[in-house]
Amino acid sequence: MKKTFVEMLKAGESVDDIFVARGKQLAHKKDGAPYLTLSLVDRTGDMKAVVWEHVQAISKTFAAGDYVRVKGKVTEYKGTLQLVVRHLEPADPDQVDARDFLPATERDVDQMLDRLIQISQAVQNEHLSRLLAAFFEDPAFVDLFKMAPAAKKMHHAYLGGLLEHTLSIVRLIQAISTHYKGIDTDLLLTGGILHDIGKVHEFSYETHIDYSDAGRLLNHIVIGVEMLEKKIATLHDFPDELALVLKHLIVSHHGLRDFGSPEPPKTLEAIILNYLDELDAKVTAVRTFIEAEDPDAPWTSYHRVLERFFFKGKADNSSTVEGHRSEAKEGRKL
Amino acid sequence: MKKTFVEMLKAGESVDDIFVARGKQLAHKKDGAPYLTLSLVDRTGDMKAVVWEHVQAISKTFAAGDYVRVKGKVTEYKGTLQLVVRHLEPADPDQVDARDFLPATERDVDQMLDRLIQISQAVQNEHLSRLLAAFFEDPAFVDLFKMAPAAKKMHHAYLGGLLEHTLSIVRLIQAISTHYKGIDTDLLLTGGILHDIGKVHEFSYETHIDYSDAGRLLNHIVIGVEMLEKKIATLHDFPDELALVLKHLIVSHHGLRDFGSPEPPKTLEAIILNYLDELDAKVTAVRTFIEAEDPDAPWTSYHRVLERFFFKGKADNSSTVEGHRSEAKEGRKL
Amino acid sequence: MKKTFVEMLKAGESVDDIFVARGKQLAHKKDGAPYLTLSLVDRTGDMKAVVWEHVQAISKTFAAGDYVRVKGKVTEYKGTLQLVVRHLEPADPDQVDARDFLPATERDVDQMLDRLIQISQAVQNEHLSRLLAAFFEDPAFVDLFKMAPAAKKMHHAYLGGLLEHTLSIVRLIQAISTHYKGIDTDLLLTGGILHDIGKVHEFSYETHIDYSDAGRLLNHIVIGVEMLEKKIATLHDFPDELALVLKHLIVSHHGLRDFGSPEPPKTLEAIILNYLDELDAKVTAVRTFIEAEDPDAPWTSYHRVLERFFFKGKADNSSTVEGHRSEAKEGRKL
Amino acid sequence: MKKTFVEMLKAGESVDDIFVARGKQLAHKKDGAPYLTLSLVDRTGDMKAVVWEHVQAISKTFAAGDYVRVKGKVTEYKGTLQLVVRHLEPADPDQVDARDFLPATERDVDQMLDRLIQISQAVQNEHLSRLLAAFFEDPAFVDLFKMAPAAKKMHHAYLGGLLEHTLSIVRLIQAISTHYKGIDTDLLLTGGILHDIGKVHEFSYETHIDYSDAGRLLNHIVIGVEMLEKKIATLHDFPDELALVLKHLIVSHHGLRDFGSPEPPKTLEAIILNYLDELDAKVTAVRTFIEAEDPDAPWTSYHRVLERFFFKGKADNSSTVEGHRSEAKEGRKL
Amino acid sequence: MKKTFVEMLKAGESVDDIFVARGKQLAHKKDGAPYLTLSLVDRTGDMKAVVWEHVQAISKTFAAGDYVRVKGKVTEYKGTLQLVVRHLEPADPDQVDARDFLPATERDVDQMLDRLIQISQAVQNEHLSRLLAAFFEDPAFVDLFKMAPAAKKMHHAYLGGLLEHTLSIVRLIQAISTHYKGIDTDLLLTGGILHDIGKVHEFSYETHIDYSDAGRLLNHIVIGVEMLEKKIATLHDFPDELALVLKHLIVSHHGLRDFGSPEPPKTLEAIILNYLDELDAKVTAVRTFIEAEDPDAPWTSYHRVLERFFFKGKADNSSTVEGHRSEAKEGRKL
Amino acid sequence: MKKTFVEMLKAGESVDDIFVARGKQLAHKKDGAPYLTLSLVDRTGDMKAVVWEHVQAISKTFAAGDYVRVKGKVTEYKGTLQLVVRHLEPADPDQVDARDFLPATERDVDQMLDRLIQISQAVQNEHLSRLLAAFFEDPAFVDLFKMAPAAKKMHHAYLGGLLEHTLSIVRLIQAISTHYKGIDTDLLLTGGILHDIGKVHEFSYETHIDYSDAGRLLNHIVIGVEMLEKKIATLHDFPDELALVLKHLIVSHHGLRDFGSPEPPKTLEAIILNYLDELDAKVTAVRTFIEAEDPDAPWTSYHRVLERFFFKGKADNSSTVEGHRSEAKEGRKL
Repeated sequence: MKKTFVEMLKAGESVDDIFVARGKQLAHKKDGAPYLTLSLVDRTGDMKAVVWEHVQAISKTFAAGDYVRVKGKVTEYKGTLQLVVRHLEPADPDQVDARDFLPATERDVDQMLDRLIQISQAVQNEHLSRLLAAFFEDPAFVDLFKMAPAAKKMHHAYLGGLLEHTLSIVRLIQAISTHYKGIDTDLLLTGGILHDIGKVHEFSYETHIDYSDAGRLLNHIVIGVEMLEKKIATLHDFPDELALVLKHLIVSHHGLRDFGSPEPPKTLEAIILNYLDELDAKVTAVRTFIEAEDPDAPWTSYHRVLERFFFKGKADNSSTVEGHRSEAKEGRKL
Repeated sequence: MKKTFVEMLKAGESVDDIFVARGKQLAHKKDGAPYLTLSLVDRTGDMKAVVWEHVQAISKTFAAGDYVRVKGKVTEYKGTLQLVVRHLEPADPDQVDARDFLPATERDVDQMLDRLIQISQAVQNEHLSRLLAAFFEDPAFVDLFKMAPAAKKMHHAYLGGLLEHTLSIVRLIQAISTHYKGIDTDLLLTGGILHDIGKVHEFSYETHIDYSDAGRLLNHIVIGVEMLEKKIATLHDFPDELALVLKHLIVSHHGLRDFGSPEPPKTLEAIILNYLDELDAKVTAVRTFIEAEDPDAPWTSYHRVLERFFFKGKADNSSTVEGHRSEAKEGRKL
Repeated sequence: MKKTFVEMLKAGESVDDIFVARGKQLAHKKDGAPYLTLSLVDRTGDMKAVVWEHVQAISKTFAAGDYVRVKGKVTEYKGTLQLVVRHLEPADPDQVDARDFLPATERDVDQMLDRLIQISQAVQNEHLSRLLAAFFEDPAFVDLFKMAPAAKKMHHAYLGGLLEHTLSIVRLIQAISTHYKGIDTDLLLTGGILHDIGKVHEFSYETHIDYSDAGRLLNHIVIGVEMLEKKIATLHDFPDELALVLKHLIVSHHGLRDFGSPEPPKTLEAIILNYLDELDAKVTAVRTFIEAEDPDAPWTSYHRVLERFFFKGKADNSSTVEGHRSEAKEGRKL
Repeated sequence: MKKTFVEMLKAGESVDDIFVARGKQLAHKKDGAPYLTLSLVDRTGDMKAVVWEHVQAISKTFAAGDYVRVKGKVTEYKGTLQLVVRHLEPADPDQVDARDFLPATERDVDQMLDRLIQISQAVQNEHLSRLLAAFFEDPAFVDLFKMAPAAKKMHHAYLGGLLEHTLSIVRLIQAISTHYKGIDTDLLLTGGILHDIGKVHEFSYETHIDYSDAGRLLNHIVIGVEMLEKKIATLHDFPDELALVLKHLIVSHHGLRDFGSPEPPKTLEAIILNYLDELDAKVTAVRTFIEAEDPDAPWTSYHRVLERFFFKGKADNSSTVEGHRSEAKEGRKL
Repeated sequence: MKKTFVEMLKAGESVDDIFVARGKQLAHKKDGAPYLTLSLVDRTGDMKAVVWEHVQAISKTFAAGDYVRVKGKVTEYKGTLQLVVRHLEPADPDQVDARDFLPATERDVDQMLDRLIQISQAVQNEHLSRLLAAFFEDPAFVDLFKMAPAAKKMHHAYLGGLLEHTLSIVRLIQAISTHYKGIDTDLLLTGGILHDIGKVHEFSYETHIDYSDAGRLLNHIVIGVEMLEKKIATLHDFPDELALVLKHLIVSHHGLRDFGSPEPPKTLEAIILNYLDELDAKVTAVRTFIEAEDPDAPWTSYHRVLERFFFKGKADNSSTVEGHRSEAKEGRKL
Repeated sequence: MKKTFVEMLKAGESVDDIFVARGKQLAHKKDGAPYLTLSLVDRTGDMKAVVWEHVQAISKTFAAGDYVRVKGKVTEYKGTLQLVVRHLEPADPDQVDARDFLPATERDVDQMLDRLIQISQAVQNEHLSRLLAAFFEDPAFVDLFKMAPAAKKMHHAYLGGLLEHTLSIVRLIQAISTHYKGIDTDLLLTGGILHDIGKVHEFSYETHIDYSDAGRLLNHIVIGVEMLEKKIATLHDFPDELALVLKHLIVSHHGLRDFGSPEPPKTLEAIILNYLDELDAKVTAVRTFIEAEDPDAPWTSYHRVLERFFFKGKADNSSTVEGHRSEAKEGRKL
C-alpha cells in the first residue's frame, strides 16, 4: 500500500514507493554522459526526477505511463523540489490501487451507489423500473459506473466523479419534482440516472484520465444511446415511444448543437434535465476552482475556460450569529 | 362589471359591453360613403368590428387604445366573426378593471404575495431582512409588483406574471438551498425576490402590455439596480460588500452579455440564480405554448423563437394505475 | 392507376381521380350555410377545392391527410384555379401508388440500387464487404432505402432521393479515390454508402414527406449509428476499431457540431466524406432551385436558406461549336 | 521626491529610491540558504531584484504591493538587469506621489479639466448645465475624475486617461456637432462628458491599475447610471425624459450587448456617441501600440486583441515639402 | 415633362402621364375574360392599376420594367386607390428624366460635386492630387458618380446618394483631421473620396435601383480597387506603397470580413475611415427611417435590419428659448 | 552548393556552410563581456548558435535575415544542440539556391507545370484558352508561380506549394467534371488554375516565407482579380460576362465572407470550386500534420487551428492481403 505521496515530500527526505512515470526524456551532459529526466505522479501531484547513474539500463525497464517503484532522495533545484533517483524498477499494476494515483471522489462510492439504487427503486413505471434494475444488476456496467470520472477537466474530473454527478442531478430532480405539474417524474429520474452513462466508455482511467478512442470518435451522447438501446433490447415489450423520449433525454441533454447535442430539448423533461445538468456542472466546476485557490484572497485567479474571475468576498456579510457562509468549506452535502 | 367576453361571442348575438378599441381605420365604400373598422379587445381575445352609420360622429369620440362601450350585433363574414356596431361611446377608465382587458394570472395575487412575504421573513441576515421589509412595506412598489407582467411575450406575459415568476424562482431556491454547501441562502433568496423588480417599470400595462420608454431605453436590469440602490440608501449601515453582491445578482442574472447582463455571474449564488431563472422562464414558456395548441396532436406547431417543435407524445407511457403525466393540464402547483 | 394530375388541370375540365386531401376547413357563408375548403395534392402540385353541397356528410367521411377520390369541375376564381367538388369519398391506401402523390426521383430506382450494390461488391475488406452484404440482403432495409427521401426540403427532397444522393456520393468517392494516397478506399466507400442510412427512419413518407418522431427526437446521425451497431452485432468478429472508425464516419459527416455532428471529422476519410456530402447536397439544392425558376432570367429569385441570388448567365459564353453549358438542363448523369 | 526610475538604470549603478514591490517570492539555494526575489516597479517599467542577506528579517517588513525604499546595486544576469538589494524597508504611502509609480498621461491634468469645464459651460440647456456644474463642483468626484485611467489595458490605461479620453470625445463631438441637423448638441455633449464616469469606481489605481470589486461585479455602465441618478436627485425639477435619454447614452455607449451595453443605441445622439467612443478608443489603442514598437520597422508585431499586424509604412509617401506624416510622433494635439 | 406623380393622385381624378410599369400579371374573370393587373411606379410611390379592355393588345406592347404612357381614372377599391387604365402605350426612355421615376437626393448634385472637387484640390500630395484630378476629369466616371445611389436600401438609397454620402464623409474627415496627430490627411481625404467608387458599377439605376451583375458577383470593394488600379496605371511614377495603402483604404473600409472587407483596417487612416463610414451610414439610415414615420409618435416602428425601435421623444427637453432639436426636420446641412 | 543541413548535425561535428541567420541578439556575461546568440536556419530546421569571440566585429557584418557562411562546432547544452561559432561572414545571395533554405515541394516543379499546361490546353473555349496561354507565356508570372508557397502555415506552406495545390485542384475538377451535367467545365478548369494566382504576390519567399505588404493589406483574392483583369485587358474581345463569372470564381472561392470572400459562391462552378479548394487544403493540412508526428501513436497531438486530435488507428483494419492503408506514407500521387 502506497504511503508516500508527492504532496508530502520535503527536501532532504528519502523516498521508496510507487509512482506513475511520465515525461521520460533522455538527455546528455556537456561531457556527453547521458541522464534521464521524468515526472513522478500520484493523485496528490507530480515531481521532477532525474537519474544520473545506470541510465541506459534503467531506461530500458519502463515506458512513460508505467507504474514504477522508485528509491531516491528529494533535493531542491532552483526553488523546486526534484528527486534524485537511486533505483527504479517497474511495479506490477495488479499490486496497486488506481485510486492512489488518480484523483478520486472524497465520498464513499458504495454508499453513493446504494443511495442511487434506492432512489431508482421509487420509479413506479414498470418499464423504466425494470430498465434501471437491468443496469444496476449488470456487474460490468456497475464496476465502470463506480470508477468513471465525469470529465477530463473542469468538473468531477476524478474517479467516482460520474457517480457523484449523477447522484447530485438525481437529487436535484427529486427536490423540484413536485414544482411543475405535468412532468413525468419517473421519466425524468430515469433520464437523470442514465444521461451520462456513455461516459463510462468515453474516458480511459487506468493510470491517468483521458478520452478513450470511442470517446473522441463517437462522443458519450452517441455511446450512451447505444448502451441504452442494447439494454432495452433485453427487456420485453418496452414501449417504442418511451424508448424514444428516454433516448431523447440523452441526445438533448447538452442543450445546443454547439455543445454536442444533435437535437435540442423538445420535451419538458428534456428542458429540465438540460438546465439541472448545466447547473450542477457549472456550480461544481466553480467550487472546485475556488477551493484550489488561496482561501484568503477575495477573488480567484482568472478562469480561462469560463473567462472570468470569481468573487469569494472579503467580509462576513452575515449579521447573525450563525453566519451562513461559514460552512462553505465543508464540502457539498449529499 | 364586464360580463361579455370576446371568446364567448357567437354569430347572431347582441353585445352591450366595454372593450379596448384598437386598429381604428377609416375607409370608403365604392360609392364614396365612409365606414370605420376597428378591433375590440379584452383579455380573452379580439374581434373585428365595423361601423356603417354615424361614422364621422362616432369616429371623433375615441382614439385607438381607449376603452369604449359598444352596442351591436355579431355577424359572420368570410368565415370569421365581425361585430356590426350600432352604438359606440368612450368608457371611463376608472370604472373598469384592467384585469378584464389584459390577460392575467390564474392564481390569487394576494395569496401569492403573502406567500412571498412569508418566505422573505425567514431570511435571517438582518440587513437583507430589513431590506426586504422595506420593499414589501412600500405600497407604491407593492401595487406595481402585484400587477406587472414578467414579459411582453414568451413566459408569464400577463398581469401578475412577475409575482408568479418571482414566487416560482424563490420556491426553487428553497427546494435546492440545502443541496450545495457554501451557498449564502439568505443572499440567494433575497436576490431571487429582487432579481426582476426592474420589470415593474420596464413594462406599461394599462390597456395592453408593452415596453415602457424606460424599459426600452434602460433595460430592467439597470432599472432594478437603481431601485435597489434607492431602497438601500434608506437603511442604516447596509454593508457595502453586501450591497455589491446583491446588485451583482441583478446585474448578472441573464448569464451572458448577449442576453443583456453587463457582467456574467461571478459568485456561486449568481450562477445558481441564473440557471433557475432560465429554467423557470423556459419551462413556463414551453408549457404556455403547449397549452395553447391542439391537445390531441403529438407535436406542437413550430416555435419561432425557440426554433423547434415540441413533443407531447402520443401514448400514455405510464404502466401504473396513477399515470403521472395525467395531471399535466391542471396547471402548476405553487 | 392515377391519370389526372394537378399540373394538367385547366379551367372548365371535369375531374375524377384520387388525391391527398389537406388543409380541410369548415366555414360559413353569410347566410349561415356551411361549406368546406381543402387542398387536393399529388406529386405535381396542389389545388384549392371547395364543397358547397352535402357538406356535413362529406366532411365526416375523411380527415386531412387521407387519400380521397374526388369528382368535380375546375373553375377559376380571382385568377387561380379551384375545383368545385361534386363528390368526395375516401380511397383505399392499398390501392394507390405513393409515388403518384409524392415527388419522386426521375431515375430508375432499381437500376440505381443495382449500381450501388455492384460498387459495394468491389469492396475488398472482408468485414466491410460482409457488412454491406448484410444490409443489401435485408429486405426491410432495402424497401425503405429505395423509397426514402434525403431531406424534407432543399436537396433530394423526394422519394428515392436518399438512394440518388448516396449513389452520387459513392461515385464521387470513386472518382477521387486514387487522388490522395493513404486513404482507406474500402472504408470510405462503405462510409459513403451508409452515412445517411438513418434517414430511412428520420422521415415519414407515406402521403407526404415530413420528419418522423424518431427523426425529430434523435436525428438521423444517432439513428444511423444504432442501425449500424445492430447490423454489426449480427456479424462474426467484426473488428472493434473498424466499427469505431466506420461509426465515426456517420457521427462526423456533418462536419461541425453546429450542423449536428457531435464530433468533427478526425480521420482523413471522415474529412473527405464530409466535403463530398456537402458538395453533393449544395450543388443539388442549387440545381433544383435553378431548374424551378424562369429559364430565361439571368438570376434566380432570392434563396432564403442560402441567402443569395444565383446567377445563370445571360450570354452563351462558349465560343466553340459544342457549347458546354448547352447540356445543362438534361439533368445529372449518373 | 523620486529621482531614480527603472528605465534609467544601468549595470553597475547604485540605487537608493522608492519602488512598488511585486512578485515577492522566497526560494532556497542548493545549500538550503534562503533568498528572496521580487520585482521593483515604477511608472517606467520593472526590474528583477534579489535579496541574498538578512532574508527573513527583510521579508517580514513588507508585502507584495507595498511601497519600499531600496538600496542596492544593478548587475546583469543572463542578459537582463537585476538589482542586488542591500537594504529594503517599507515606505510611507503618504510620502509618495502615485504618478511616479503608475503610468500617467503626458498632458497637464488641470489644464485638461479646465478645458472640459469650459466646454461644459457652453451647454445652454439649463437642466444639463446645472447637472454638469453639480459634477464639477463635487470635489470628491473631481479628485477621482482627474486620476482615473480609462482602461486596464489597451487605451488610455494610465492615470489621467479617463479625463484625456473624455476630453477627446467631447472635442470630436464639437467638431462634428454642426454636421448633422436634428441632433441635440447639448444632450450629446453632456452624454460625452458623463458616458464613462462609472470608470472612476470601476478601477482601483493606488499602487497599480486593476479592476475594483465594483468594477468586476457591476461594470462601469451600471455604476455610471447610479452616479448620474444620485446627482440628478440633488437637482430641482430635472425632466424625467431628459434623465432617461441621458442615462440611455451611458447604457448604450458600447453599442452592442456583446460589448456590455444592456440596450443598443436608440437615439441619434446615442448612435453618434457610440461611434465616436469606439473611434477614439481604437485609434488611441493602435497609436499606443505603434509607439511602443520599433520605429523603423514597417509593420508592428502582432496585436493579440485586435488580431492583426499594423502597417506604418516604409516610404515617406508625401511628395510635398511639408510631409504630413512627419509630425506623427509628436503626440496628439488637444 | 412628367407632371402627375403617384403621391398626388386622389380617387376620381383622370391621369395622363408616364410611369414605370411593374408586376404585370394576366388573370381571368369568372366568365373567362382576361384582364391585366400591374403597378405604376414613379419616385413618389406606386399604385395598383388594372386593364379591363383590349387586354391582349395592350399586354403585347410592353414588358415589366418599361416606361409606359397611361391614361385612365383613379378609383378606390377596398380602401386602396387603383387606376382603371383606358389607354397604355410604351414611352420612349430617351424622352424621360430618370429622376422623375427614381427617388433622388434633395440636394443640388452639381453643387455637391463642385464642393467635393474643391476639397480635393486642397490635397497637397502631388500623386494623390493628380489621381483625384484624373477621376474628376473623366466624364464617363463623373456622369455615373453624380447619378449612383449609395445603397439599394437602408441609407442614401436614391440617385445622387453616393455623391451625398461621399461628400458627407469627406467633410467629417475635414472636421476631425486636426484631432489626431500622425494622420496622413491627404491620404485619408483621398481614401474618403474614393472609398465607394465601386458603387457606380455595383448598382443599376435606370428604371429602378438594384444590384448589377458585377455588383452581385464581385462586390463594390473589388470593383473599386480595379477602378483605382486602372486610373493609377495612367499616371506616371505613382509610388507603389502609396497605391497599396490607398487600395487598403477601399479594401478595409467595411471593417470586418463579416461585412465584406477581405482584410480589416491595418493603418490609422483605415481605422478612421471605417468608423466615419459606419457613422454616416448608420446616422443617415436612422434619420431616413425616422423621417418616414409618424412625426408625433415618440417611438418609430420596429426597424427589421437594425432590430430595434428608435426613440424620438415626447417632450421638448430644451429649457432654452432657442430649442436645439427644433431644427431637426430641416434636413442635413452640408 | 550547400551540403550540410541542420537536421543532419550531431554533437561534436564541425560545420562550414551557409545558413540564414535569425534572432540575432547581443548579450553580456557576468563579467560584462559581450556575446552573440542567433539561430541558423535552413529548410531542414534551425539550430541555436553562439559567438563568444570577436563579437562586435562579427556582429557588424550581418543583419538578421541574411545569408551567412558559418564555421564552428556543434555542442550540446542542456539537452539541445548548439553551434559554437568560430567564424561568420555574410554570403552572397546570388550564390545560394533559395530551395536549400526554405522548405520546398518534393515533386518536380517543371513536371508539375508541364502537366498543368497540358491540362489547360484541353480547354476548348477560345477566350479562356487564350487567357491561360497568356498567363503561361508570361515568364515573370511563371517564375513566381513555380516558386510561390500556397500558405504561410497549415497546407502547402513551402516553395512550389502553390503549383502543387493548383495542380491537385485541377485534377480533382477533371475527376468529377462529368459527374454533374450543366457545369461549364472550361470555366471551372480555368477558375481552378487561376483561383489562387494572387498568392504569388501575397507572400514573400526569399529567405523565409511570410506575408508581403500587399498580401497583408489587400489579400490574395483582391490581388488575383487585379492580375486577371490586367491579363484580360491584353486580349481581344474577351466577353464581359465571361470575365465577370471568372473573376467571381476568384472572389468567392473562400466560400464565406468570414473566410475572406467578399461575395459567396453564386454560380454552380463557384460552389464546386469552393468545396474542392477546402477539401484539398484540409486534407493536405491534416496529412502534413499527421506525417510530422510519431508514426506509431494512434492519435496525433492536438491541432490548435483545427481544434482536435486526429486518429491514425492502432490496428491494420484490412483483412485482405493488399492492405489499402499500407501505402499511406508514400505521399500523394499526382
